[in-house]
Amino acid sequence: MGLSHIDEKGNARMVDVSGKDITKREAVAVGKVFMKEETLNLIMDGNMPKGDVVSTARIAGIMAAKKTDELIPMCHSLPVDGVQVEINCNLEDLSVDIKARVSCCWKTGVEMEALTAVSVAALTVYDMCKAVDKGMVIGDITLIKKTGGKSGEYVRQTGGQENV
Amino acid sequence: MGLSHIDEKGNARMVDVSGKDITKREAVAVGKVFMKEETLNLIMDGNMPKGDVVSTARIAGIMAAKKTDELIPMCHSLPVDGVQVEINCNLEDLSVDIKARVSCCWKTGVEMEALTAVSVAALTVYDMCKAVDKGMVIGDITLIKKTGGKSGEYVRQTGGQENV
Amino acid sequence: MGLSHIDEKGNARMVDVSGKDITKREAVAVGKVFMKEETLNLIMDGNMPKGDVVSTARIAGIMAAKKTDELIPMCHSLPVDGVQVEINCNLEDLSVDIKARVSCCWKTGVEMEALTAVSVAALTVYDMCKAVDKGMVIGDITLIKKTGGKSGEYVRQTGGQENV
Amino acid sequence: MGLSHIDEKGNARMVDVSGKDITKREAVAVGKVFMKEETLNLIMDGNMPKGDVVSTARIAGIMAAKKTDELIPMCHSLPVDGVQVEINCNLEDLSVDIKARVSCCWKTGVEMEALTAVSVAALTVYDMCKAVDKGMVIGDITLIKKTGGKSGEYVRQTGGQENV
Amino acid sequence: MGLSHIDEKGNARMVDVSGKDITKREAVAVGKVFMKEETLNLIMDGNMPKGDVVSTARIAGIMAAKKTDELIPMCHSLPVDGVQVEINCNLEDLSVDIKARVSCCWKTGVEMEALTAVSVAALTVYDMCKAVDKGMVIGDITLIKKTGGKSGEYVRQTGGQENV
Amino acid sequence: MGLSHIDEKGNARMVDVSGKDITKREAVAVGKVFMKEETLNLIMDGNMPKGDVVSTARIAGIMAAKKTDELIPMCHSLPVDGVQVEINCNLEDLSVDIKARVSCCWKTGVEMEALTAVSVAALTVYDMCKAVDKGMVIGDITLIKKTGGKSGEYVRQTGGQENV
Repeated sequence: MGLSHIDEKGNARMVDVSGKDITKREAVAVGKVFMKEETLNLIMDGNMPKGDVVSTARIAGIMAAKKTDELIPMCHSLPVDGVQVEINCNLEDLSVDIKARVSCCWKTGVEMEALTAVSVAALTVYDMCKAVDKGMVIGDITLIKKTGGKSGEYVRQTGGQENV
Repeated sequence: MGLSHIDEKGNARMVDVSGKDITKREAVAVGKVFMKEETLNLIMDGNMPKGDVVSTARIAGIMAAKKTDELIPMCHSLPVDGVQVEINCNLEDLSVDIKARVSCCWKTGVEMEALTAVSVAALTVYDMCKAVDKGMVIGDITLIKKTGGKSGEYVRQTGGQENV
Repeated sequence: MGLSHIDEKGNARMVDVSGKDITKREAVAVGKVFMKEETLNLIMDGNMPKGDVVSTARIAGIMAAKKTDELIPMCHSLPVDGVQVEINCNLEDLSVDIKARVSCCWKTGVEMEALTAVSVAALTVYDMCKAVDKGMVIGDITLIKKTGGKSGEYVRQTGGQENV
Repeated sequence: MGLSHIDEKGNARMVDVSGKDITKREAVAVGKVFMKEETLNLIMDGNMPKGDVVSTARIAGIMAAKKTDELIPMCHSLPVDGVQVEINCNLEDLSVDIKARVSCCWKTGVEMEALTAVSVAALTVYDMCKAVDKGMVIGDITLIKKTGGKSGEYVRQTGGQENV
Repeated sequence: MGLSHIDEKGNARMVDVSGKDITKREAVAVGKVFMKEETLNLIMDGNMPKGDVVSTARIAGIMAAKKTDELIPMCHSLPVDGVQVEINCNLEDLSVDIKARVSCCWKTGVEMEALTAVSVAALTVYDMCKAVDKGMVIGDITLIKKTGGKSGEYVRQTGGQENV
Repeated sequence: MGLSHIDEKGNARMVDVSGKDITKREAVAVGKVFMKEETLNLIMDGNMPKGDVVSTARIAGIMAAKKTDELIPMCHSLPVDGVQVEINCNLEDLSVDIKARVSCCWKTGVEMEALTAVSVAALTVYDMCKAVDKGMVIGDITLIKKTGGKSGEYVRQTGGQENV
């Protein structure tokens, strides 16, 4: 199987999906921002403005999902039906964990919307904390589930996350 | 030291930088898209359209650097002076490696611009290859160098990358 | 009834409308820019460029309706079918009166699109006149009619405007 | 004095500010969303997700300030130095009160940025509450203070707000 | 027949297409960037980076097609199904020739999307080459084919281009 | 001299202008929309809404100048100081003639801003008239003057337009 965004001459194109059916689709993606324990504590600390770091990142992720087609050159514009972004502080992994779930009824999937929501939420966490910790690392961004469309359901096998 | 994007009531704000000097600033960020060997080979293969996967991701990264302030809620708008995005296929790590270097003469740093360029280039690689490999993982996104501004030079110590 | 943009944990989300029917929807919103009589005369005066103040505000309002989902974090993207913006000088109230009518066939209503069109048209009137009058006040922005969707028709009772 | 966005033929233009000095500028604007007491209580209620309605509106306002030049046709692009948006529930007036303060060092003022931040924060409050109250009215949007630039300081006299 | 973007009072409006059927539509537009032979050779020359000038222009054209409704005030937003941009160096005419094909299933046509893709690809070619040739001319931008919708098929008669 | 947007490996980049001086710059570009006499008459006819076709195109051109860096991948963001767009009906050439003048004090020139303003104004004229004339041709888009910057003044020699 080839790379579908490329035509027979090797040129990028936006694949023509005119002939595809409109079906209900959903995608779930996750990612993490790894940081020092002190930084994580600053976010979580009751005396500290945890609320707004997390709120700001959540809102940034939701808004970014709607901009995916502007950012990713070959992505189709599509009318997203719903976006949820969950953000949790993970003391075990010393990370802020982000999960985005996007749904849509359209001809193409919403994997990129979910991954973009996670990425921009992660960048926002970085931005809100970089004054105290420049060594944070954004990683483990991956698709964990996808339903709908001709290719059917996909569930990530390894490195699993329960309760998708 | 506290989180500077938060005011004394715990509310998000865009920090006032009116009083800061305009200095030359540079930031370098890196990241990786891990994938199956077959996928990497498809990108690298001379008979395959490697050129455009990499070109599209590079251009997406450069354009995203200019949109950073639209994506990250508390980021300042600033007139970026230059952006370079390098993308290399890494057979050892089975990854596409991305490095972005952004420069600017302004009151705030360009870390977020470099990290955003890397993130969007990585998402674009994912998008261009997802028809053949849904298990790719985006990771190791981090700042490796920053110069200019009151806080001075920062060079990442661990996990180093030479030849910044 | 609760606030639908908020999940059970109090977090903002973009409500999932996958299950909602596509129906024809329309919304009409109004608003006013109150100003000094001299300012209003400058806009209306035949020797003065009335045309373009009003034209510019009308176009700004129409374009803003298409950007509503970019501005309002939890708003869904939707393919607007039509936008009309009417702007009239009101010598009795000493105001520029703005009315926007937006139509769409989609799963969610277009109230926010109509209100955004009015708001941005009002801001544009302010911008075009602020060199001569900084004391203008934008107000009375409200929804006066809404049709379509599960919640049915809404017509504002008080403070009425005839001839919707 | 004439309307500066209009040339001698009555056509809209973006005024040439090449010759103007770069000075420190600040603008403060306010506005209100009037609503039913029940709606206001839902926002304020400790059991209810007050936090996020207000957080979402604040972030929307800050992000909108950076988009002012995209929305208002004749507005100059400028590199905003800081934006603060304060939102308070006002039980006396039955309103959500919004105040935006924007600062910048540039050739033109930031009045439109402050007014746009207030307007979009108000629209966001409307959006977050419209499921329970369609009769809300956005009003009293006005500039209350402006400093910097050739025209000097402006402080609104009537209808005053203390503690600007 | 009148100009449909104008209402009976001469005001611009975004035409209401609520009542129109959703049909498959396609549009093909072309255009040229005329330049000096030396400039064209620089683009084509194997030792020179032809690849990326053409790639960058192609990607810019595809991305611009998705932004048409943001640029053209009375254009409807629509979910484009596919975009292809072909760019060829034409030694006979001393031009870079651009052709864009856009498809969509919606209530309005995609002529403006195809023309916008061509225009922005042409501007990008100009930008990439302007350091060596400021005298380039962008021209011959026109619609050569359109199918679907109530007005049916349109094929440009004069100045033809074969193999549409 | 090579193509400056390309690095030594043939990759596109956004040229680093950190070291360039800020100088006053201006650029003037022109272009034409050729059409049938009947179409031109519809625009010009006193009984017809000439005003708004021209106003809409002028405003679209001005707004597009501010979006140039979003459209052209390797273009720098810069704070435009002024934009003027003149649009005239030319009965001799059967065309709508567009001229854009852009000024700025920055490290890079504003040629692309002027050319983008002309192109988008032309596309808007096309959009406003396409219901009556699909055969219009956009052409003769070129830079006629440029001042400021290290490369100094450029004035187009051939095909001249007086009274720049």
